[in-house]
Amino acid sequence: MRKAVPALVILGLLLALGGAWGAPAETADGAGHGGPVVPVLLGLIVILLAAKIGGEVFERMGQPAVLGELVFGMALGGLGLLGFHGLDFLKASVGIEILAQLGVILLLFQVGLESNVGEMLSVGWSSLLVAVLGVIAPFFLGWGVSAWLLPDEETLAHVFIGATLCATSVGITARVLADLGKLSARESKIVLGAAVIDDVLGLVILSVVSGTIAAANSGGSLDALDTLAIIGKAVAFLVGALLIGGWLSRRVFRLAGFLKVQGILLALALSVCFLLAYVADRIGLATIVGAFAAGLILDGVQYRELGEKTKHKIEELIHPLCSFLVPVFFVLMGLRVDLSSFGQTSVLGFAALLSLAAVLGKMICAAGVIERGLDRLSVAVGMVPRGEVGLIFAGIGAQLTLHGRSVITPPVFAAVVVMVIVTTLVTPPALKITLARGDRKRGGARPVPEPEPERPAVPLG
Amino acid sequence: MRKAVPALVILGLLLALGGAWGAPAETADGAGHGGPVVPVLLGLIVILLAAKIGGEVFERMGQPAVLGELVFGMALGGLGLLGFHGLDFLKASVGIEILAQLGVILLLFQVGLESNVGEMLSVGWSSLLVAVLGVIAPFFLGWGVSAWLLPDEETLAHVFIGATLCATSVGITARVLADLGKLSARESKIVLGAAVIDDVLGLVILSVVSGTIAAANSGGSLDALDTLAIIGKAVAFLVGALLIGGWLSRRVFRLAGFLKVQGILLALALSVCFLLAYVADRIGLATIVGAFAAGLILDGVQYRELGEKTKHKIEELIHPLCSFLVPVFFVLMGLRVDLSSFGQTSVLGFAALLSLAAVLGKMICAAGVIERGLDRLSVAVGMVPRGEVGLIFAGIGAQLTLHGRSVITPPVFAAVVVMVIVTTLVTPPALKITLARGDRKRGGARPVPEPEPERPAVPLG
Repeated sequence: MRKAVPALVILGLLLALGGAWGAPAETADGAGHGGPVVPVLLGLIVILLAAKIGGEVFERMGQPAVLGELVFGMALGGLGLLGFHGLDFLKASVGIEILAQLGVILLLFQVGLESNVGEMLSVGWSSLLVAVLGVIAPFFLGWGVSAWLLPDEETLAHVFIGATLCATSVGITARVLADLGKLSARESKIVLGAAVIDDVLGLVILSVVSGTIAAANSGGSLDALDTLAIIGKAVAFLVGALLIGGWLSRRVFRLAGFLKVQGILLALALSVCFLLAYVADRIGLATIVGAFAAGLILDGVQYRELGEKTKHKIEELIHPLCSFLVPVFFVLMGLRVDLSSFGQTSVLGFAALLSLAAVLGKMICAAGVIERGLDRLSVAVGMVPRGEVGLIFAGIGAQLTLHGRSVITPPVFAAVVVMVIVTTLVTPPALKITLARGDRKRGGARPVPEPEPERPAVPLG
Repeated sequence: MRKAVPALVILGLLLALGGAWGAPAETADGAGHGGPVVPVLLGLIVILLAAKIGGEVFERMGQPAVLGELVFGMALGGLGLLGFHGLDFLKASVGIEILAQLGVILLLFQVGLESNVGEMLSVGWSSLLVAVLGVIAPFFLGWGVSAWLLPDEETLAHVFIGATLCATSVGITARVLADLGKLSARESKIVLGAAVIDDVLGLVILSVVSGTIAAANSGGSLDALDTLAIIGKAVAFLVGALLIGGWLSRRVFRLAGFLKVQGILLALALSVCFLLAYVADRIGLATIVGAFAAGLILDGVQYRELGEKTKHKIEELIHPLCSFLVPVFFVLMGLRVDLSSFGQTSVLGFAALLSLAAVLGKMICAAGVIERGLDRLSVAVGMVPRGEVGLIFAGIGAQLTLHGRSVITPPVFAAVVVMVIVTTLVTPPALKITLARGDRKRGGARPVPEPEPERPAVPLG
């Protein structure tokens, strides 16, 4: 961490620079004729440095880098409370917003690329049961907590808050399991399979909730039939994208093999991703649903047609784009947390209960493991982290309005961010404990040799 | 080319889609809640497909892909003349503009990364003389043509048009020489060295001209002292960036070697690029000057500190970003050409004379080759293509205003685009002819075995 200090000094200098010159507006002021890209450049420097310093600090504490991006984003946003307003332009910049949205679209595309439909279908009933229980329980717990503590909000707002508790972050769990050398254990396979199914279920719930909110805004009532229609649309989109899109893009990609021009693979992959994201938006779903479907499609295509090598190639080409744009999303989410709302004890209480609901809700997953002799508690703990997906849902909720009011208000957004941070922070140490306990139970037999941990386990917080 | 037909069909379907749904505005219209990123997604799909289809068609005609991007962009822009306005939103979209600007910043960063300062200083007097002659002659020829044909424009506009004729496109010449197996010939080294020096000289001229325009706008007069001050500032920036920036970033990158977080190399490289681009803009230079300087700095750093392997790594990480964003710039430049201005014969005449000035101006480069026994005509022909740099200058000129009027008006912009296309189209076949002639003169001795050309030489136009 000592090594991160000079980087912090540089970030400080940059902030001073931004402050001294003021927020670079899009108006020409004598010097500077670069147009709207100039403030975006300054914003990107601050965001990239904050993301990497935050990521480094959290990785050294044994935590996922994404948390560091979020927390350092919150810290940058909190500078406004200390009277420094040189970065306020970041929150309002359309350019940064568009880059962040492209980042989250590419992230879900990447998640889709890494999820294999065939594997998803083969992980068996345990994964499916774990996933369904792990979606239903937190959803209703979150709804209940929200209805209890925020009686003035509309029912749909409670439902939306419940939805932010559904998803499981594949990335964080997979990372912890890999660090512990447990990726090939049966429990791990159940957790990872369930996390992927959770993504799909979560996206369907998100579609239903946002669709219902759109219907409510246009004055329609929300009967069961409409809800069923939206579920049908979401499922039809995903299945249709997989079947028709898969068939079509297999042909397009085979054709592209005959082209000579450079960069055709990346351009086609991005086009498919952007097209499905766009179509998803036009039919009333979230753009990320389309991006995820595009990832699933292209994973299958590459795998079947061009073999392992080219499949890795799409992911490798997408990787630098994600590495540039995804942190923009997480730092911006952190920036948008209104730290002053934590001054209200009610917000802190709501955040605490929401976090509790999020953790307890996933404990029910243990009941979904139908195979015998497995470490059910580890499976349940592995399902706890919400990571990026909860945040993405909250971000969408903050943009949606119901009867002229944000569905996710700034204090609720802050509480959801706390829930995401808590569930993610709790998982790595808890999983280490439950897995060790499970190994002892089985008489010390360790299915996979556990490597000497590189970093000391650090207490939470 | 037959293989590109299905892709054209898909592009057509997309255009129909865009037309039927209309330009997706940023306002919510029932379906769709994805915010400002949604129209950008549609725009990116159209741009990426147009870029790749255009690139493919032109590559198959033995021409550089960048021309295809430009021409297909012009074709998309021309759809408006045929009564199709579904793509008009592309020209006005701030999101697409920002992505295009990031693309051109990354392109100049990449050019900088590929230029080696040490190599630039070692190519000797021939390269320097060729470069200087090849900047001065077209500059004054272009100025003269503009002053003659556009007597109503201000002197500074003529000067700016002259500036767009200065630069040489390293990329296109290098590509043709590589295709002919001539990259290691002495003539090629002179051309490539001179092209890099041209980039620097061109950027200095651009800085001076834009700075003078800014001074003129704020009511100041433009005496020789001010011009010298701007030259001083530009040179000081480049030298300062190379010395201080090189020293500083060498330390930062060495430090970054101790960091564990993923993506640190890309994040730091982008931060240096964006920071210098931002600083360049704040002191009144163009953002691309800073991006080029950043590339020069990081090329040196990587080379000295971390060896060949990591040096390639920065370029490899930047490559997918460029592959995504650079075509956005060229297609957008094509889109912005007002095809209807070609209906005026005066514009066509201006474009023809400007192209002639651009070609003849570079012929004087032959006099700069001081070594004996070399093929001077090939050196001069190699300096002809303007490619991306001329376009970038014209794009900047279109954004600058002088006394409330664009420095580069739409008809002049169209003429500059024609000049860029003509000089670039002429070079590959002309270079093949002069190099073959030079080989015959030397008694058929071919310094490097010339591979069987893969594609037949296609007549111009």
